[in-house]
Amino acid sequence: MEERSQDGEGSGAAWGAAFDPERFRREGRAVIDWIADYWQSLDARPVLSQVEPGWVAAQLPRRAPQTSEPLASVLADLDRVVVPGLTHWQHPSFFAYFPANASAPSILGEILSAGLGVQGMLWATSPACTELEAVAVDWLRDLLGLPERFGASGAGGGMIQDSASSGLLCCLVAARERALAAGPEMPVVYCSDDAHSSVAKGARIAGMAADAVRRIGVDPQGRMRPELLVVALDEDQQAGRRPCFIVATVGTTARGAIDPVAQIAPLARQHGAWLHVDAAWAGAAAVCPEFRPPLVAGAEMADSWGMNPHKWMLVNFDCHCLWFADGGALAAALSTKPEYLRTAAGDSGAVVDRSDWQIPLGRRFRALKLWMMLRMIGAEELRKRIRDHVAWAAEFAGWVGADPRFVLLSPPNLSLVTFALRAGDEASARLLAAVNRGGSAYLSHARVEGRYALRLAVGGTITGRQHVVQAWTTLGELAGDLAGPGA
Amino acid sequence: MEERSQDGEGSGAAWGAAFDPERFRREGRAVIDWIADYWQSLDARPVLSQVEPGWVAAQLPRRAPQTSEPLASVLADLDRVVVPGLTHWQHPSFFAYFPANASAPSILGEILSAGLGVQGMLWATSPACTELEAVAVDWLRDLLGLPERFGASGAGGGMIQDSASSGLLCCLVAARERALAAGPEMPVVYCSDDAHSSVAKGARIAGMAADAVRRIGVDPQGRMRPELLVVALDEDQQAGRRPCFIVATVGTTARGAIDPVAQIAPLARQHGAWLHVDAAWAGAAAVCPEFRPPLVAGAEMADSWGMNPHKWMLVNFDCHCLWFADGGALAAALSTKPEYLRTAAGDSGAVVDRSDWQIPLGRRFRALKLWMMLRMIGAEELRKRIRDHVAWAAEFAGWVGADPRFVLLSPPNLSLVTFALRAGDEASARLLAAVNRGGSAYLSHARVEGRYALRLAVGGTITGRQHVVQAWTTLGELAGDLAGPGA
Repeated sequence: MEERSQDGEGSGAAWGAAFDPERFRREGRAVIDWIADYWQSLDARPVLSQVEPGWVAAQLPRRAPQTSEPLASVLADLDRVVVPGLTHWQHPSFFAYFPANASAPSILGEILSAGLGVQGMLWATSPACTELEAVAVDWLRDLLGLPERFGASGAGGGMIQDSASSGLLCCLVAARERALAAGPEMPVVYCSDDAHSSVAKGARIAGMAADAVRRIGVDPQGRMRPELLVVALDEDQQAGRRPCFIVATVGTTARGAIDPVAQIAPLARQHGAWLHVDAAWAGAAAVCPEFRPPLVAGAEMADSWGMNPHKWMLVNFDCHCLWFADGGALAAALSTKPEYLRTAAGDSGAVVDRSDWQIPLGRRFRALKLWMMLRMIGAEELRKRIRDHVAWAAEFAGWVGADPRFVLLSPPNLSLVTFALRAGDEASARLLAAVNRGGSAYLSHARVEGRYALRLAVGGTITGRQHVVQAWTTLGELAGDLAGPGA
Repeated sequence: MEERSQDGEGSGAAWGAAFDPERFRREGRAVIDWIADYWQSLDARPVLSQVEPGWVAAQLPRRAPQTSEPLASVLADLDRVVVPGLTHWQHPSFFAYFPANASAPSILGEILSAGLGVQGMLWATSPACTELEAVAVDWLRDLLGLPERFGASGAGGGMIQDSASSGLLCCLVAARERALAAGPEMPVVYCSDDAHSSVAKGARIAGMAADAVRRIGVDPQGRMRPELLVVALDEDQQAGRRPCFIVATVGTTARGAIDPVAQIAPLARQHGAWLHVDAAWAGAAAVCPEFRPPLVAGAEMADSWGMNPHKWMLVNFDCHCLWFADGGALAAALSTKPEYLRTAAGDSGAVVDRSDWQIPLGRRFRALKLWMMLRMIGAEELRKRIRDHVAWAAEFAGWVGADPRFVLLSPPNLSLVTFALRAGDEASARLLAAVNRGGSAYLSHARVEGRYALRLAVGGTITGRQHVVQAWTTLGELAGDLAGPGA
């Protein structure tokens, strides 16, 4: 080895060990084929993993190998140990949580990103990573009908982060800094009772007081009640606290409810609070003009607006798109520019170093997967798929509503149906457990006005109407045993 | 379309549009080949992108297409627009910042992760995603010689996050919560003058007062001076503030200096402060027994210890490994468990839902790329590569030290060399700009004791000794014009 280190030829060996292009071609093909086989096998697998806690870890050696093992051994362990331990998010009968639907073009984009291995923390460390992101995110803004002020041309802009939680936290920190610059009053955050847990988590991370998050009551459809928000805002203002950050949810987790952003926005402005719209899941449906109006209403008065192409828009996890009216506010809160991160381009002001808009310093080239999905799927197909999912959810809701054992807990919102057994919470929970244990479909749950609710969210990449039909058939069969004496 | 929606056969078309397995096999191969070709072309490309701000965006249409475009068009645009806009982090002559060296096995792991498309926010949403991560991170802990208390068996544990910045923030929030639970005194953070900007950024995100971060002076080698830390801790304690979080850096950005963790640790314990070790880059070298002692010294008294396999350990970005002594402290600070995230396994206490240890809710299956790198590269090859890089950096430092135009600003630490032109800051900055503009090598800079410093960090996957030789030749040639009249 000493000899090799002293020898220019040495790098040939290094190439071989860590990146041998011809070996990569062979092994890359094997992995691509493995993935294609996996997707073709999905329909026959149980959706929810059936392993016990600790089973996967127990199958694996306690220590890393000292010398190289072949790909074939790894793939064998994938089949033997990993796949049984997966809950298959790409399974056509995955109806839990919200989908994380991947598509072939987005997977190809992720592959290219991994293969290129560039890190776009600064514009200079890969200009295309910054500029392709700005372009792809602006394409999406246009497709969703979001306002020009979130466009790349003005003070606003859009970016990709890992998740809606992180995007919300960045905006919250910017809002908190703006509030504290205005005065020492305690900053207060507002969201609805049904808002996502990331609001409370973000406020805690941002160091806001435990009692600084106001949960505003919702109407019977699960939408924030603006008249209660007014009361809370006035109360805080009069008590010498500072309204700082209002989160309006477009598509709540429990019911898919849409807060009335257009009514909330003037209140935010009146009180000087930052308005953030969390449209993580439902935002995707704004590609369809017929679903768009309530989803983007008020966006022209929002300070930030986020949605996840990695949920219902065929980009594999992770890909959160965040638009904002004032990139300067984000950078003022999050930029730290030590000498070693300064570049001529950054200093010139001609470019934005996008690490100034996020929590981590490093940045993957996530734009490739969004860009490739948009180009290779095309907007028309995106719309068609959303329409299918909404139609199938409406059908499913119809079947639920017509079955005397069941009750709809909400009219279906887009592709989400929230329902229960009339026999009560325990029966509903047992039904969910039975369906998921069976493996033919996977649903999740929430609580709606205190009641245990089953949730069916349609949105899988390879989900067809027949899978929704099958889920209902299974629910109906299993409910027979659980619906109680009254059924 | 109406017909299709009503028709079980409809899903066939959906499969075709977003994931057609046979088309994926073909296109996946084309993408794999494109990546192999890209790596083979790297040596002939300029390392630093030579495009002007706005060039990439200007080459692309303003709007997304309505209908699908073929992969060939996308790949053509990659060649035409994206590649010229890249700064090539995998180029063998990339010596800037710290490396982000990818390897074929880790890229294959990322491909599998994208292809599987699972989301491991909870144990139940893919047990293998949680358990394989625990295993792979524990393998790495063992290889680095980190203590058992960070192992998966006790209260501690290890995990993968996106970046050292995020891992540090999570620990800081946990430390802040622990401090505030102990009393209302203002919590204070300590790190050296040369610590990474993520400390100040994390403190700001966590809502800590602007004057709550103490920068502790360093010795002539760039290491935190414990005797100054003692003074600062005592001063704060006496003034009624609460020492909360101490960051010890193992491998500073500017010079690769290693703070004396074993001397800092007792001070942290004495004052009840959380000790976090930031070994983001240098930690990788602990795989070699001969480099290990100063790198892991004091780890057995640290509360958390982080390093990035995505820097100098052949895992493609992003992959930060964070170990901690008390997972409960992290979860206490970061867990928010609304009804819709509760599962039987999580409620039983038999498993940890790893989203409770991080900022975002969602989790990619990052463990695959670490696991596959460890298995397919093997520990022996990892050690050999680190040793080569350190040896080449020492050679390079020898050449710098022997050239009267140059001065070493620090003895080389591992594979990092920090140096300058004797002619002064302006000449050094012009030399850096000239080298990077030339395209045959890419270095970055820092400031060391007020002086402008060039940095050469050896660590690329396909970097050989000849590339280090070539970088020195180029520096020497260009310095001829810049070293000033005294040269």
